[in-house]
Amino acid sequence: MKYGRCYNFSAGPAMMPEEVLEEIAAEMLNYQGSGMCVMEMSHRSKVFETIRNEAEADLRRLMNIPDNYKVLFVQGGGTVQFAMVPMNLMKNGVACYLETGAWSKKAIKEAQKYGEVRIVASSADKNFSYIPDCSDLDIPDNADYVYICENETIHGTTYFSLPDTKGKILVSDQSSMFLSRPCDVSRYGLIWAGVQKNVGPAGMAIVIIREDLLRDDLPQFVPTYMNYKTHADSDSMYNTPNCWDIYCCGKVFKYLLKNGGLEAMDARNREKAAILYDFLDRSRLFSGTVEAKDRSLMNVPFVTPSKEQDAAVVAACKAAGFDNLKGHRSVGGLRASIYNAMPKEGVEALVRFLTDYEKENG
Amino acid sequence: MKYGRCYNFSAGPAMMPEEVLEEIAAEMLNYQGSGMCVMEMSHRSKVFETIRNEAEADLRRLMNIPDNYKVLFVQGGGTVQFAMVPMNLMKNGVACYLETGAWSKKAIKEAQKYGEVRIVASSADKNFSYIPDCSDLDIPDNADYVYICENETIHGTTYFSLPDTKGKILVSDQSSMFLSRPCDVSRYGLIWAGVQKNVGPAGMAIVIIREDLLRDDLPQFVPTYMNYKTHADSDSMYNTPNCWDIYCCGKVFKYLLKNGGLEAMDARNREKAAILYDFLDRSRLFSGTVEAKDRSLMNVPFVTPSKEQDAAVVAACKAAGFDNLKGHRSVGGLRASIYNAMPKEGVEALVRFLTDYEKENG
Repeated sequence: MKYGRCYNFSAGPAMMPEEVLEEIAAEMLNYQGSGMCVMEMSHRSKVFETIRNEAEADLRRLMNIPDNYKVLFVQGGGTVQFAMVPMNLMKNGVACYLETGAWSKKAIKEAQKYGEVRIVASSADKNFSYIPDCSDLDIPDNADYVYICENETIHGTTYFSLPDTKGKILVSDQSSMFLSRPCDVSRYGLIWAGVQKNVGPAGMAIVIIREDLLRDDLPQFVPTYMNYKTHADSDSMYNTPNCWDIYCCGKVFKYLLKNGGLEAMDARNREKAAILYDFLDRSRLFSGTVEAKDRSLMNVPFVTPSKEQDAAVVAACKAAGFDNLKGHRSVGGLRASIYNAMPKEGVEALVRFLTDYEKENG
Repeated sequence: MKYGRCYNFSAGPAMMPEEVLEEIAAEMLNYQGSGMCVMEMSHRSKVFETIRNEAEADLRRLMNIPDNYKVLFVQGGGTVQFAMVPMNLMKNGVACYLETGAWSKKAIKEAQKYGEVRIVASSADKNFSYIPDCSDLDIPDNADYVYICENETIHGTTYFSLPDTKGKILVSDQSSMFLSRPCDVSRYGLIWAGVQKNVGPAGMAIVIIREDLLRDDLPQFVPTYMNYKTHADSDSMYNTPNCWDIYCCGKVFKYLLKNGGLEAMDARNREKAAILYDFLDRSRLFSGTVEAKDRSLMNVPFVTPSKEQDAAVVAACKAAGFDNLKGHRSVGGLRASIYNAMPKEGVEALVRFLTDYEKENG
């Protein structure tokens, strides 16, 4: 890698495309003749307005977002979205959640502050190592929405087909898979994603919401900031947004468009994941922790037979330039997060290293 | 200016020290041998932990923050703080607010969602061009706190002495004056500041809160994210923080320490402001809009006799490399924001330009 960079397998914040970082560094002291850094720009200035509008337009093009959906840039990440979703969408006070791991559990706990949460499917019985059957869920008539975490970062599962919501609004946390593959936005009422995994720096979530879900009649206790309509009515400029994040994400959107869009990312990501999963399936030292049909293309957890060996591998990897491979404490072992910005060479190099490690220590 | 940079008089986001931007650019592809950009780092990694801990320690040193105060890094800016303050501090449901401009009005409106707001002083009668007498405010016994906006960015006023709160907790929005002068933190219960004016990029507020004000017993409707205790108990790492902002602010804290701390900034800021106010007091074309005793050292609003001439001056300034001088629509005219990072040379150059303009057009 150039610049002495490592292969960074962090689950998030995570790698960004090297050429994007080069562009950002080059524009630091004077953005395109504006005489200032993007961090120094008034958010109401024409130059920043252009940055913001291009970012939204490029994202709309990438995801083919229908005109009746708003794109919002909201600070606060997932923890804020866990509250905003029920605050804004619970009209009848009932919502259905699918419990598939740590992040859906956090979303459930927060939603319970605002109404009744029905857990209509769960994979808790096997430590969230699979996606439950979602073809015939018991969804009550008065349910306001059905909520999924579409890719569980910690447990390494993903939905390859969406649940049958029986006509109810589908809400999806796409944080750790956002822009990793094509997405039919029209099948969702609301998609949100913390950008710090597959797009840009931590500090913002992107929300894509169908316009008819925006409401004027929220309970008084809902802070102005936490009404989606506040952001929708002002093009996410009600208050000073995270301008830097919008700029960095916009750069990544342009990079993705230039490199073939989401179809190309999907092909690349499938190829990268296959290299790693094929290795794990062949290995006698390492094994994946997720049922084959539900394996995430982004987050790949795996284990050795012992915690001691897990730790030894993580340390050996770090010394060899493969960083952040320690698994989350709730799953243990190792985890390789291989988002869009992880080059195929990084995955190949990791597999070579693990193969050699197995030969020497297996 | 180097790099073709302009003098940027934006009210926020605003100028940052040039040497800080140079350092950030130099560390973009590989932060101090870590092999990655700060934007790519796991917030749980040792390298980021050091960045975060140094930022807090440097801020504590700069402001001499007592040990019984917590320092929090919270996403969402002022709009989120307007709700968090009453959500967390209204126990009796009564708070006193001083109405001194647009930002205190916004804070008042949001607080009214959560309890009774008593406006105990106001300068609305003269379009917020002064700070009201705060020596004998009518503060009820059951008031939970007294709230001020210590420097009104739009109107250009500042408190040179703090209100007598009759023993109640003082809460201050210091956004547009944070770190511009020494501050006796022990006189406040809570100080908050959006960092995008006098410190770093937009996307974060810093909250300094006395520990005994943290509470476990908030109403159920308060989102987990909006309880100050959530952040205090986790060193602001309950969720992924705005790591980039913490990094950039940390750089600015080190820059301030290296350059004499807040005493030196105060002297510099007084000198810079005096250059501009002395010019305005002498000028026959331009005049300041604020009563002399309450003039902000950070935000300097001024007008010509007509809106047409105001606009002509703003355009002439921009063409000459003095950007973002247009005043806020509620005051009109021009506004020069001269935060810590604006060099004295920038203010001198602006005054020379305005002096010449007056000779030619006055």
